[in-house]
Amino acid sequence: MSTAVAGVQLGVAQAGIKKANHDDLVVIALAPGTRTSALFTQNAFRAAPVQLAEAHLAAAEVQPRYLLINTGNANAGTGDAGFQSANACCDALARLTETDASAVLPFSTGVIGEPLSAEQITTGLPAALDDLCDAGWERAAGAILTTDTRAKLRSIQVELDGQQCTITGIAKGAGMICPNMATMLAFVATDAAIEIPLLGELLSAAAQASFNRITVDGDTSTNDAVTLSATGQSGIEVTAGSEQAEHFAQSLTTLMIELAQDIVRDGEGASKFVEIRVTGGESEAACDQVARTVAHSPLVKTALFASDPNWGRILAAIGRAGLEDLDADAVSIHLNGVLIAEHGARAASYTEEKGQEATAAGDLLIEIALHRGDAATVIWTTDLSYDYVRINAEYRT
Amino acid sequence: MSTAVAGVQLGVAQAGIKKANHDDLVVIALAPGTRTSALFTQNAFRAAPVQLAEAHLAAAEVQPRYLLINTGNANAGTGDAGFQSANACCDALARLTETDASAVLPFSTGVIGEPLSAEQITTGLPAALDDLCDAGWERAAGAILTTDTRAKLRSIQVELDGQQCTITGIAKGAGMICPNMATMLAFVATDAAIEIPLLGELLSAAAQASFNRITVDGDTSTNDAVTLSATGQSGIEVTAGSEQAEHFAQSLTTLMIELAQDIVRDGEGASKFVEIRVTGGESEAACDQVARTVAHSPLVKTALFASDPNWGRILAAIGRAGLEDLDADAVSIHLNGVLIAEHGARAASYTEEKGQEATAAGDLLIEIALHRGDAATVIWTTDLSYDYVRINAEYRT
Repeated sequence: MSTAVAGVQLGVAQAGIKKANHDDLVVIALAPGTRTSALFTQNAFRAAPVQLAEAHLAAAEVQPRYLLINTGNANAGTGDAGFQSANACCDALARLTETDASAVLPFSTGVIGEPLSAEQITTGLPAALDDLCDAGWERAAGAILTTDTRAKLRSIQVELDGQQCTITGIAKGAGMICPNMATMLAFVATDAAIEIPLLGELLSAAAQASFNRITVDGDTSTNDAVTLSATGQSGIEVTAGSEQAEHFAQSLTTLMIELAQDIVRDGEGASKFVEIRVTGGESEAACDQVARTVAHSPLVKTALFASDPNWGRILAAIGRAGLEDLDADAVSIHLNGVLIAEHGARAASYTEEKGQEATAAGDLLIEIALHRGDAATVIWTTDLSYDYVRINAEYRT
Repeated sequence: MSTAVAGVQLGVAQAGIKKANHDDLVVIALAPGTRTSALFTQNAFRAAPVQLAEAHLAAAEVQPRYLLINTGNANAGTGDAGFQSANACCDALARLTETDASAVLPFSTGVIGEPLSAEQITTGLPAALDDLCDAGWERAAGAILTTDTRAKLRSIQVELDGQQCTITGIAKGAGMICPNMATMLAFVATDAAIEIPLLGELLSAAAQASFNRITVDGDTSTNDAVTLSATGQSGIEVTAGSEQAEHFAQSLTTLMIELAQDIVRDGEGASKFVEIRVTGGESEAACDQVARTVAHSPLVKTALFASDPNWGRILAAIGRAGLEDLDADAVSIHLNGVLIAEHGARAASYTEEKGQEATAAGDLLIEIALHRGDAATVIWTTDLSYDYVRINAEYRT
């Protein structure tokens, strides 16, 4: 299956930012007429490229023509020098391509707090431009990684009015993953034609159901960004309120959930993929609070790493999630389908053997029923392993 | 220095709950006339002994005469059987000592969700009662431990009106440490005479400044409890609003901070003792929010473990702490006195060498100045090491 999206070309180069002889620079070229929406991190410390990309997007007369991405350095916590560097990179690409600098959106990922050399990037740009091609998705997916061990590339065909259109996306992220309105970095494109307000709505709704439902370590990055570009080159128009819009939204959400889950599965040191479903809450926010407290509990995460059905830790985490007047006796917990706790205690039908069998799997489903309302939520997370500590203790050394 | 508190005797036995030939049962006998206040966990899943101890304390006619503590099993998440077991233990001790069962406060710590054998405890009680003596503090401090590696025993002499009185306390706790109104387990006693409302106020204020300011892993236990018993046997009366009350409160707070810090220093897998001071917030709650977000960030904790002055992670954690309209440029961060970040970037005066020197120490002070108000807070925490994962992955296996 081809991942190509008509109107999108990707080029990769080795600029020596991450290390020598390593893909670390990506240019995504968008054909004239392409419309792009984006979401950025809610962290108060927003990296220079995040702020600049947002400013360029807000200059609505000029729709983005180039996404410029580097790995190895996040250009975050770099003060005024960071802005100068991000600006210089956009200027250089604009000069080379004879576009306006505000038509370039910059994205950076990697270590925080180190100065980013604009010179390394501008020196690498001609090679990246030479490399531009429709089939560049796979190499680009590899070039944006940091501590990730696998590239994340997903593509889906959507049939709208009997015609095929394509949605393809790449993502990166393995640590500092607790996106808030967006994830570390993800770039999605389609050849459908979608006007700007609808494009933004589709992106927000899909991000809410995908990237905003994953967490590796509870740490929201300074550089989170996700973009959705619609080139229109398939000739298919998606309009607000239409059946196609609904259909497209479903496919987009599916693709973004796949990318989000790819990020979790490749989470730093992850040996388990854990889905936490909370049902019976008084509101989605209350369910979310419980799901995230369980997902972030180091004691739950280390027990999952050990394949230990230590449901007492799950129960303790639910109990500290801050729900008012939580009736502990009403809560029940299933682990991969096995009822492990109810009425505030171990289920009568539960045996340690069943529990161990249920937690031995690499994919875990924790179902928590609160029995106090009709709301529900789901989030995806990982365990906490020696390798998480190793990767993050050794990251800069 | 003697730790003895007139009117308090402690006895220890080996009941086989934790493992064979291991101190795991403690009885603390309080002389008639002793008044006791206690604080318990705010976790919605409160263990059976926590609920029973609270009920017995509320039966205000009978002041507690015995504290009954076991380690090895938390009797939490054990449903009705857990209550029966806790009740049976209190009844047995009441029969042996010819007191009312409501004069016994039960406390349990250890694994969650396993049935607690009342028989093992009642069988061990005669030996614990035989062992009762004024000098039992040290052995009792050892007998209440779980994954702790060191006993926590502190004693302080207070001069009130030219007379000496004593405050002595023991504590345990190494994981699931993020107390909310109390810590894992701590038992403090004094020979001063203090009436009930004042005793409770003194305990609350001191807990707020000590146990409620520590966190190892953000996990609030189901069994947290701290007691303060005043035997009155020194003949010194501490009355509300008096200068003595203020003086006593200071000493009590000092002692409880020492115990709280002992718990952090012995935190699971801890290789660093980390003090986080946040100043310049609009409220203490806002400062606390920032301090806890930094303290719970796995990325900050693993960097501290690696002695890596990765201030970018501290900055990212501050940025996601949820303060409204945080001016990232106004924030400054000092690490052991070295200015590492200001104006949203690395400080001009900072060198990697200085940063590494500052983080090499076992004791770290992280100072975060928000420059948006006059409030301040402090909390104490640890790093996140391989050993934390090992201890918690292997805890039940």
